[in-house]
Amino acid sequence: MIAEEFKQMLGQKSVIRELSEYAAERAKQIGYENVFDYSLGNPSVPVPQAFTDKLEELAASRDTMAVHGYSPSLGITSVREKVAASLSRRFGLNYKKEHIFMTSGAAGALAHALRAVVTAGDEVITFAPFFPEYTPYVHGLGAQLKVVPPNTETLQINFEAFEAMFSPRVQAVLVNTPNNPSGAVYSSETVKRLADFLVRKEQEYGHDIYIISDEPYREIVYDHVEAPYIAKYYTHTITCYSFSKSLSLPGERIGYVAANPNNPDAALIISMCGQISRGIGHNCPPSIIQLAVAEVIDMTADLSVYETNMNILYDGLTRLGFSCVRPGGTFYIFPKALEEDAVAFCRHALKYDLILVPADSFGCPGYFRMAYCIPTEKVERSLTAFEKLVKDYR
Amino acid sequence: MIAEEFKQMLGQKSVIRELSEYAAERAKQIGYENVFDYSLGNPSVPVPQAFTDKLEELAASRDTMAVHGYSPSLGITSVREKVAASLSRRFGLNYKKEHIFMTSGAAGALAHALRAVVTAGDEVITFAPFFPEYTPYVHGLGAQLKVVPPNTETLQINFEAFEAMFSPRVQAVLVNTPNNPSGAVYSSETVKRLADFLVRKEQEYGHDIYIISDEPYREIVYDHVEAPYIAKYYTHTITCYSFSKSLSLPGERIGYVAANPNNPDAALIISMCGQISRGIGHNCPPSIIQLAVAEVIDMTADLSVYETNMNILYDGLTRLGFSCVRPGGTFYIFPKALEEDAVAFCRHALKYDLILVPADSFGCPGYFRMAYCIPTEKVERSLTAFEKLVKDYR
Repeated sequence: MIAEEFKQMLGQKSVIRELSEYAAERAKQIGYENVFDYSLGNPSVPVPQAFTDKLEELAASRDTMAVHGYSPSLGITSVREKVAASLSRRFGLNYKKEHIFMTSGAAGALAHALRAVVTAGDEVITFAPFFPEYTPYVHGLGAQLKVVPPNTETLQINFEAFEAMFSPRVQAVLVNTPNNPSGAVYSSETVKRLADFLVRKEQEYGHDIYIISDEPYREIVYDHVEAPYIAKYYTHTITCYSFSKSLSLPGERIGYVAANPNNPDAALIISMCGQISRGIGHNCPPSIIQLAVAEVIDMTADLSVYETNMNILYDGLTRLGFSCVRPGGTFYIFPKALEEDAVAFCRHALKYDLILVPADSFGCPGYFRMAYCIPTEKVERSLTAFEKLVKDYR
Repeated sequence: MIAEEFKQMLGQKSVIRELSEYAAERAKQIGYENVFDYSLGNPSVPVPQAFTDKLEELAASRDTMAVHGYSPSLGITSVREKVAASLSRRFGLNYKKEHIFMTSGAAGALAHALRAVVTAGDEVITFAPFFPEYTPYVHGLGAQLKVVPPNTETLQINFEAFEAMFSPRVQAVLVNTPNNPSGAVYSSETVKRLADFLVRKEQEYGHDIYIISDEPYREIVYDHVEAPYIAKYYTHTITCYSFSKSLSLPGERIGYVAANPNNPDAALIISMCGQISRGIGHNCPPSIIQLAVAEVIDMTADLSVYETNMNILYDGLTRLGFSCVRPGGTFYIFPKALEEDAVAFCRHALKYDLILVPADSFGCPGYFRMAYCIPTEKVERSLTAFEKLVKDYR
């Protein structure tokens, strides 16, 4: 019989998808260049030429068993070694291949990391504003997701609320910095305070508590911002990474789980990921993409356009009177709506062909998200539309 | 805390992996060409040149957003359309893109198909000999897998046992023809009888019962064998396919779920797959591989070597006195061991550098599996080793 749980999920419409479909329809009427579509976090800069070259070389190979053959269940050994070496070099922790599990993007990484340390009935805590897919990720394994209300002044952690919500049933804290949807980067003070609190709670409760650090935006950090590497601050950290944003490869589904080498259970967690895969039908990420990514492991696409766009938007929007924390990274900005109901506000913005996403589903009503991974000239032109929008609220 | 369930799975050693590791070690000592490694079902023929050409063209493209961008959650629309058109053309059912969900190989397809129609506490039935990964696939969603004992005379379904084991809790029957590990292809009589029985049970119990048809070997069928397309015989069929074997692409993780268009719930099941994905971290198979596969949708690698190898082995083994059903497809053969304990038999065979897999883990003790996706000249040479092995049992 049809599984009711998933059937009922179909009834819940995704606001982001609806908006993006509206934008596509509208583009047919007035031209794509006239729709200011800030709805989707789809990287807009090309992949590095070096990646293209390597992929082309692999694709052309007639040693097709070597290129397209089965990957070992934890990932191709040489690829895991290259990921480990790169992380060690960059962050000063002693990663080895035993600490790396290759995954189908960050979604695959989170699915494994969560299952490694959380079981049905446990609690996972995350911080608003948060990526709404965390809810099905956590519910998918029968655990409960508790959401700490936001500190909208700073977009750092609301520690008062967090500490009050903590309980012995919390097995993992899901952290996402640089953050989708806010663009905020947690400061080292925030991360230290979080780590100190969790260490105290581990001692108090007598069991390990994990930070699952979702880091697809790790490489998109702006000038003068220092993004702390969470695992350096907290031993029981499992890092979940995706190359989607750094290499502009969202469709190729490639990422990894990295368990902190200072954790005596790190290699165990990675081995367990291979077992977890069997139950959820994951197996490995595509062999050819693993091999190609390993060749450009320390590279990124030219991400500078995101900072350019951010500066234009931040200056423009604050000048127009929007209240907004300056993003430290990602390609998101998170202003306060000009009326209490952000859904109504975003609906009104459609009048000027501005496609903005209300942040209700991110756990932060009254705010909206803009994904500014679009051409800079369009960002500039959109400010005129914002000007008109603001006038309607005066 | 560490999830005990997956930690304990690590204790269970895989016989196939152990054997394959032994074979690799032994190859270092005596040379790869002298180890008759029949342990792994890793396709040995190159991918079609047309696939390589298309992949190279896509990889070289600098419209990297089009090639590497996000795939819609059900798969790239043009790819789903091409899969549907191909299935319609070949099997005479009216598939549309609404009936197709692109997946990361057959493992991904089974993970979704099972969750669409089976929930925790339900029963799933399959037939020995069976692919041992079915156990974690079914346990992974909290359901129970019941295994019908084999009919070793014919390797068709043991209907007497099957019918006796059936209960109202069975929501799905997991079928794999052409079969791994036996190489058997179910006859149309077998499939008809299965379909008739399930239709009767649906009426008796008043609920739908699904066949989940695992078909990665669909294209590897030998001369004079007719492989029935299960969905043509039974409306409540969900077909799970992988291009791993037909295109020799096991590492690229590309396949699909196809819901029978005659089933009024077909499009619903496919939409639900998109929701199921969210909970298990699947998302989509790699965009570039989706696009490349769609261009060679009706092609296969040159699979003829498998039939050549099968004929040599079947003739050679039966001449040596092995009892064995002639395979109808795949690249497996499934002889009876020469002693009751197939594990002991396979261990003994190592003496002659024959790497054979005991079928205990396939639910069929006393038999062994050979994956003959290896060079023909090696198959021929292995018969001398078998001759020596047989002498030890006289």
